[in-house]
Amino acid sequence: MQENQLDALVLTPGASMFYLSGFDHGHAAERLLALVVRRDGSSSWIVPAMNVPQVAGQALAGQPIRSWADGEGFLPALREAIEGANEIAFDDEARAAFLMDLVELAPQARIHKASAILRELRMRKDADELARLRMAGKIVDDTISLAVALCRPGQRESDVETDLRRALLAKAPGCTVAFTIVASGPNAALPHHETGQRLLQKGDVVILDFGIRETGGYHSDITVTCSVGEPADPEVRKVYQTVWEAQRAAVAAVRPGVTCDAVDRAARSVIEAAGDGPYFLHRTGHGLGLQVHEPPYIVAGNSQVLEEGMVFSIEPGIYLAGRFGVRLEIIASVGGAAGASLINAPSAVEIPIAKE
Amino acid sequence: MQENQLDALVLTPGASMFYLSGFDHGHAAERLLALVVRRDGSSSWIVPAMNVPQVAGQALAGQPIRSWADGEGFLPALREAIEGANEIAFDDEARAAFLMDLVELAPQARIHKASAILRELRMRKDADELARLRMAGKIVDDTISLAVALCRPGQRESDVETDLRRALLAKAPGCTVAFTIVASGPNAALPHHETGQRLLQKGDVVILDFGIRETGGYHSDITVTCSVGEPADPEVRKVYQTVWEAQRAAVAAVRPGVTCDAVDRAARSVIEAAGDGPYFLHRTGHGLGLQVHEPPYIVAGNSQVLEEGMVFSIEPGIYLAGRFGVRLEIIASVGGAAGASLINAPSAVEIPIAKE
Repeated sequence: MQENQLDALVLTPGASMFYLSGFDHGHAAERLLALVVRRDGSSSWIVPAMNVPQVAGQALAGQPIRSWADGEGFLPALREAIEGANEIAFDDEARAAFLMDLVELAPQARIHKASAILRELRMRKDADELARLRMAGKIVDDTISLAVALCRPGQRESDVETDLRRALLAKAPGCTVAFTIVASGPNAALPHHETGQRLLQKGDVVILDFGIRETGGYHSDITVTCSVGEPADPEVRKVYQTVWEAQRAAVAAVRPGVTCDAVDRAARSVIEAAGDGPYFLHRTGHGLGLQVHEPPYIVAGNSQVLEEGMVFSIEPGIYLAGRFGVRLEIIASVGGAAGASLINAPSAVEIPIAKE
Repeated sequence: MQENQLDALVLTPGASMFYLSGFDHGHAAERLLALVVRRDGSSSWIVPAMNVPQVAGQALAGQPIRSWADGEGFLPALREAIEGANEIAFDDEARAAFLMDLVELAPQARIHKASAILRELRMRKDADELARLRMAGKIVDDTISLAVALCRPGQRESDVETDLRRALLAKAPGCTVAFTIVASGPNAALPHHETGQRLLQKGDVVILDFGIRETGGYHSDITVTCSVGEPADPEVRKVYQTVWEAQRAAVAAVRPGVTCDAVDRAARSVIEAAGDGPYFLHRTGHGLGLQVHEPPYIVAGNSQVLEEGMVFSIEPGIYLAGRFGVRLEIIASVGGAAGASLINAPSAVEIPIAKE
């Protein structure tokens, strides 16, 4: 905060608050619960009256907790907390309405993204964070073969999702399922399809994208593309091969000192060379940690230089509208003899076939 | 927008976008997907390239879709969309980082909460919305007796939650579980406890607070307080009775023309008269619809006047730290001969006892 000339940092429940304090809370919603850190190193909490025991259990000794009741509202507490602050960093992921309240209380203040300082802290994972990411990764790795086997003709996408979620929870008591995407047939041409009621058919390509949050808050994120029996579309195997090679090229490009842009380029070049450039509809990857998407983003134009301990997905994809899509996602960490190590099992060399 | 002198309205995926457009999307996160409405009635979409087919399927005929690729980023599209707008209403529930981007692109603009105009539209439910709320309510009503029966000694809170979620999904295919709170023993003294690993014991009070989202996006929200066998604490039955009477008094106060404050006061007076005022840690209720918490808020000082079709929870509670808590929640809609009708089954007159 001193380097960035920030007077106050305001965080609401989510990854950054958890990173700094160990406190998280899933039910705050429109009631402001905030950790406020000042440039002099002091800090305090703004807490709905009903959540005080929960925060008190996690607060530092002597750290003030300013409680507010529903009848009072949180504006007086927020006004006190930011008094005299002119340069305020605000949680990127907070509700926008809280920021509008803050700006009304302190119209003279200049507002900055909290990520401007927190990304530097959160982007490089230490040994404990890497161990947690590997643990979360192992749970999804161990579920891949089951997930593929669930893709039987006549199952709905939502059936596969329900069974997959149950399997993940059974493997990882105490963990939560962070997200699941089951995209079958033409739906697999939508990178962020929302799992629906479509019935899987013989010959379908199915994209399975899923991850968990382990008990310490770190995530896994994997994407497997499989086929319900032999793929019906004759181009599936060729496209799969291209995506697999793009992924391999990106992994090979990862080492300390290269830019995110260069890693994206490595994957994209392979897909462009195969003539499928226009069908690679998204960036090559995103950071992974306390959030499923966080810096560094492996995207064209991002001059962020990779450093030891950074963790991100490498997930090239090719999406042919109305026909099918292929995406292969693994998680890499920067460092080690090869420049990168994988947090997940590598993607299958050939498309896995679910028995009909 | 004309009445409020607003030039542009910017909404991101969530309840208000869904209310106006029928479009929702759960995976947008840090990629801006927005519906922009202008004062002249024109409107357009800002959409990540990979989501264009999803938005196109829901957009109006002729409604422009401005696609952006990861390599370009969304700032140019956002700049174009708000060009010339000086009074901009922004989604209360959006990521704060998007608002910071917007302010940087349009430093001259004055920013307003989108809820300032949307709450007026969303607060009064029409017949179709009421029917959906009743359908969602019936699913939780039909699960109450099972939920109580799950509260057996030796079960963990998380076991009860898992079984409750499964039961809800089985009753309501296509619906999602919006939230579940299972708070046992001393945890029941925390209004927003996060379900944990505590083992239920004979004599525990258990608060079960849960709701679903039906396929049209509308929610239910109910809270039942039960006991694992006869309550161990001799005050439980008296406190339950007080909360039940507070709820009844609040329901009796509901009719068109009274304020939210008056309904809160009706519940609070009963609890204060019993000497438990300091232990009623929250407002009496919140609106319910496309969001689990939305206007009108039934809270002290809220001069909002109730009108036909408004729907909200009535959920007084008494929380005795370290001992137990009681909360009883039902959903009421304003209107009808009695001034209010219940969307849920009424709360049990005496505390339900789960067999040991």
